[in-house]
Amino acid sequence: MPAPFPHHYEANLEWTEDARGVLSAPSLPDVAGGPPPQFDGREGFWSPEQLLLSAANLCLMTTFQALAKKSPLGLSAYRSRALGTLDRTKEGLVFTNITLRVSITVPAENVERAEKLIETAKKYCIVSNSLKQPFSLEASVTAA
Amino acid sequence: MPAPFPHHYEANLEWTEDARGVLSAPSLPDVAGGPPPQFDGREGFWSPEQLLLSAANLCLMTTFQALAKKSPLGLSAYRSRALGTLDRTKEGLVFTNITLRVSITVPAENVERAEKLIETAKKYCIVSNSLKQPFSLEASVTAA
Repeated sequence: MPAPFPHHYEANLEWTEDARGVLSAPSLPDVAGGPPPQFDGREGFWSPEQLLLSAANLCLMTTFQALAKKSPLGLSAYRSRALGTLDRTKEGLVFTNITLRVSITVPAENVERAEKLIETAKKYCIVSNSLKQPFSLEASVTAA
Repeated sequence: MPAPFPHHYEANLEWTEDARGVLSAPSLPDVAGGPPPQFDGREGFWSPEQLLLSAANLCLMTTFQALAKKSPLGLSAYRSRALGTLDRTKEGLVFTNITLRVSITVPAENVERAEKLIETAKKYCIVSNSLKQPFSLEASVTAA
């Protein structure tokens, strides 16, 4: 059961001398962040764009798992690749498309239910619902 | 100079046996993700909610730094705390508020310019512009 609403979340960032940012939150390991190579950053640092895509990836998966909790699917694999296109628009630089390609493996008897659940998970995904343009979902469910 | 647009970004997620997710991207260290304690998750895993807040934190900072690049501000400190409230609405569970509290320290002669630049950075922040409800900014600039 979720904790009573509203929920409050927190995340912190501190700039360091080498012009990169240390992302932190209570009880969590630090993550090194910075601009991506496309914006003159160096390789090896999580970018804002990739963090947003990761939030979408993880939100869909955890929502899917929460929906499947009452009647487990026997999941043997779940992979998700988020692809984002950033482009100039009249409203400035924005993500014009985010697509999540999800591959799920479950026992044959649960394929159909998993296909329905991943679509339902997209509908309830908090990150997708917080975006101006919800992500597109391309889901492929196969039998183990 | 940014690379020519459109830009393409990628982030990956793979479910692991302990029901958590490994977030990855080319050339980046893995990050362990999972649902937050508020949604029955265990402590110690980055949640979708915190990744979204981190994307906002980092986007604002990198945009601010990009804007200041031509004429450096002599930044000696930059800290940002993102606070998000998640609540039930008619449209389901969404972030009803995201506030970024930013503290910046620069030499006295650059305080006014930094105050303007952080407001401009919010305007151009890709993550903020991709959200249904852009984050609120509470910025405090002090003299070193």
